[in-house]
Amino acid sequence: MLRVQGKAVHQCDSGWVPVFVDQEQSISLMSVGFLLEKPDEAVVWRGPKKNALIKQFVSDVAWGQLDYLVVDTPPGTSDEHMAVVDAMRPYSPLGALVVTTPQAVSVGDVRRELTFCKKVGLRVIGVVENMSGFVCPHCAECTNVFSRGGGEELARHAGVPFLGSVPLDPTLTRSLEEGRDFIRGFPKSPAFPALSCIAQKILNEAPVGLS
Amino acid sequence: MLRVQGKAVHQCDSGWVPVFVDQEQSISLMSVGFLLEKPDEAVVWRGPKKNALIKQFVSDVAWGQLDYLVVDTPPGTSDEHMAVVDAMRPYSPLGALVVTTPQAVSVGDVRRELTFCKKVGLRVIGVVENMSGFVCPHCAECTNVFSRGGGEELARHAGVPFLGSVPLDPTLTRSLEEGRDFIRGFPKSPAFPALSCIAQKILNEAPVGLS
Repeated sequence: MLRVQGKAVHQCDSGWVPVFVDQEQSISLMSVGFLLEKPDEAVVWRGPKKNALIKQFVSDVAWGQLDYLVVDTPPGTSDEHMAVVDAMRPYSPLGALVVTTPQAVSVGDVRRELTFCKKVGLRVIGVVENMSGFVCPHCAECTNVFSRGGGEELARHAGVPFLGSVPLDPTLTRSLEEGRDFIRGFPKSPAFPALSCIAQKILNEAPVGLS
Repeated sequence: MLRVQGKAVHQCDSGWVPVFVDQEQSISLMSVGFLLEKPDEAVVWRGPKKNALIKQFVSDVAWGQLDYLVVDTPPGTSDEHMAVVDAMRPYSPLGALVVTTPQAVSVGDVRRELTFCKKVGLRVIGVVENMSGFVCPHCAECTNVFSRGGGEELARHAGVPFLGSVPLDPTLTRSLEEGRDFIRGFPKSPAFPALSCIAQKILNEAPVGLS
C-alpha cells in the first residue's frame, strides 16, 4: 500500500534504520517483510520467535523522535497481541483503536477483542466501523452490503467511544492498487470525510507534543 | 452464522459429542466457543495451549462417520495453521481451499499462504476469489469495489486451480444475520450460482464415499 516493497532495512549504531515512506521522512515503517529474502516467503514462526521479533521492533529500531507510533495487528487475541501489549506497556500507549465490519459475525469477534483489551489493561480509544455501506457510483443509491450499525451498537454496549463509519469505496482500493496518494487523488471520495473525521477525533485526544 | 450459540458440548464414552446444526444431524460442529463459560470471553491463549486443543478437536471429538471434515482457519501461517496440518496429516487431507479478496494487498498475503502450503506439503485444492464485484440491487450496474481478477491471476501464477469468484452480496449477509437458510431463502442471489459451482468442483474431486 505504501509502495515500499523491496526496500531494505539497514543497521546503524543505535539499531535498525526503519524504511522511510516519503522524501520528507515524515513516515517511517518497520515490517517483517523487509527482513525476508523473498517477498512471497511465508513467515512460518511459532509464538516465541514472533514475540521476540515484536519486542525488537520496539526496542531495537532507531525510531528517533516520533509523534505517533501505530502498531497494525491482525485480528485476534493471541501471542502477537500479548507481545505488542507487553512491549508497549513501558511507553504508556494511548490505547487500542478497534476496527470492525458491521455484520453480527464480525461484531462478535471484535467483542472478544474488547474483552482482551480489558483483561490486559489496555484502554480502548474507540471503535470504527469499516465497510459500512456502499454508495453505487452509477446510481448514487446506498446499499448496506454487510448490514449496518453493528460497530456503533458494539461501542455503546461496551461503554467505549464510537469514532465513526467508513463506507466501502472503490476509489480507496484504486488508490492503494495504483500507489496513488488518496488524500490528493480522491478528495471527493465518500471515504475521505469519514476517515478524516475519525483521525481528527484521535488527534484531539493526543495532540502532537503532548505525550 | 449457524445459530448454535449457547449450545453445549457433552461428553460420551468416545469423547466430546459435537453440536448438531440441523435436526437431521447432517452437519456437526465443534468450536472453542462451546467450551467457554461466557460467549464474549477472549481466548487469550499462547501457541502451545492452542495447539493442544486443535489436536483434541481432531482426536477427542466423537465425529462418527463423516463425508467431509472442514477446518476453517483464520488467515496466516502461524501456530494454529501448523497445528491443523500436523493433526490432519495422518488422515491424508484432500488439501487446502485458499480464499482471497481481489485487491493486491490481500493477494500478497494469500501468496504467502500458498508458500506455506508448499512448505508443509499440503496440496492446494484451489483458489477462490471472494468479494469479487458488487451488483447494485438498485441499478444492476456492477462495481469492482475491491478491484477484480487478483484471485485468478494468483492461481495462474502459483500453478493451482482457480475455482471461481463470489460477488459481494447483501442477501448473503442478510441471511446470515437473520439465521435464514441462504439456499432456500435467496435462490436468485448472484452469490448462489457462484458458490454452487465452486462446491460442485470440490465435490467432483472428492465424491462422498470415495475417500
